[in-house]
Amino acid sequence: MRLRNKPWADDYIKEHTSNVEQDPYDRKGNWQSIFHKEQPIALEIGTGKGRFIEGMATYNPEFNFIGIERDKNVIVSAINKIKELTNTKLVHVNARDLRDMFSENEIDRIYLNFSDPWPKTRHEKRRLTYYTFLEQYQSVLHNQGKIIMKTDNRKLFEYSLVSFSQFGMKLEDVTLDLHALEDETNVMTEYEEKFSNKGQPIYRCIASFQ
Amino acid sequence: MRLRNKPWADDYIKEHTSNVEQDPYDRKGNWQSIFHKEQPIALEIGTGKGRFIEGMATYNPEFNFIGIERDKNVIVSAINKIKELTNTKLVHVNARDLRDMFSENEIDRIYLNFSDPWPKTRHEKRRLTYYTFLEQYQSVLHNQGKIIMKTDNRKLFEYSLVSFSQFGMKLEDVTLDLHALEDETNVMTEYEEKFSNKGQPIYRCIASFQ
Ligand SMILES: C[S@@+](CC[C@H](N)C(=O)[O-])C[C@H]1O[C@@H](n2cnc3c(N)ncnc32)[C@H](O)[C@@H]1O
Ligand SMILES: C[S@@+](CC[C@H](N)C(=O)[O-])C[C@H]1O[C@@H](n2cnc3c(N)ncnc32)[C@H](O)[C@@H]1O
Repeated sequence: MRLRNKPWADDYIKEHTSNVEQDPYDRKGNWQSIFHKEQPIALEIGTGKGRFIEGMATYNPEFNFIGIERDKNVIVSAINKIKELTNTKLVHVNARDLRDMFSENEIDRIYLNFSDPWPKTRHEKRRLTYYTFLEQYQSVLHNQGKIIMKTDNRKLFEYSLVSFSQFGMKLEDVTLDLHALEDETNVMTEYEEKFSNKGQPIYRCIASFQ
Repeated sequence: MRLRNKPWADDYIKEHTSNVEQDPYDRKGNWQSIFHKEQPIALEIGTGKGRFIEGMATYNPEFNFIGIERDKNVIVSAINKIKELTNTKLVHVNARDLRDMFSENEIDRIYLNFSDPWPKTRHEKRRLTYYTFLEQYQSVLHNQGKIIMKTDNRKLFEYSLVSFSQFGMKLEDVTLDLHALEDETNVMTEYEEKFSNKGQPIYRCIASFQ
């Protein structure tokens, strides 16, 4: 998702204080206070241009949504999509250690959508399903919380299934051709539309820590 | 694998006493005695016409192989393939409760190749990865034993990954396009050749109980 550099993006992000949480590390343990309603929180890591979070937040008003996106050139598009949604906030940081941003059990679901695959073995640590990330998810997720992962990348998906399993997580659902299900509640991401239009199968799994 | 009925098959099976174990339930705890060498035992359930077990037994002389196949019209072809192999025996039964045939830890590996998918929910109990089968495998498999499953059937594979995981098994390896690996040690089954020739991906996973 390399986009033309937008020199105005930093200012744009700073101006949109009601859409982008400006001090996410100060919110630890206190995220509910920035939403209109106290209700379960769904976190998306790598929100991109925001199509997924916009659709999910619209169709699931009983959740609060937080989208983390580190790329300023991309998050500006997401800001425009979620502007009117009172149950959605964005965070413009590199998701490193989520435990600095959220307290234990603060999150109810984590969405990983078309995460960067980092195919080289020496970059394994950067994959969002490497065990150091799973440790973070386990800590910030509620006991019954779930991780819901979608990707078109076969190798990342294979890796992630094994990584979840070796970590002691349980797979609750695995589908190797999501679009064959014709699930009308599925909200597509930008990448999902792009890759499924090319005829590639979309993989999804749901995993939990118990 | 519906084949023309072979009225001579029963006699053929009974005549081949050195290839087909005639009293498998009497062998419980004592399978090593029917092989030339005492060495780890690999069990295949649903051996079909025997292409896989023949190839595996040939390339892996350091294992003893047992193939279970309930269909007499199919097992006769397997008999012909493994006739000369001293590390291979067939069993002509319906694999129901393996604990009546093998004692604890007697088996080192279990191969499930292109098992019947039983797609209807009401037939779930018949799938060879239903939890009652996993209980049997756990009991007869050595602690460090593995289950190695190959299939072209997406729904059976999705089901099995979740079933293994929910049972508390660990996934050690998952591949969603086995033939893309160009693994020269992979021995194809009859079904594998048929379905991969049609362009379908072959799925494989390796799972263990610890
Ligand atoms: C391949 S894109 C997918 C975008 C979107 N989820 C979709 O499916 O269309 C991955 C996105 O994740 C973002 N990203 C990757 N690692 C990140 C991290 N550690 N923290 C925040 N964002 C990250 C990238 O900037 C990029 O926008
Ligand atoms: C779909 S065929 C696959 C044959 C072979 N494994 C292959 O990959 O070419 C499944 C085979 O498993 C056998 N089978 C299924 N359930 C069985 C059971 N419970 N006990 C013994 N054989 C079984 C069937 O008779 C059939 O030959």
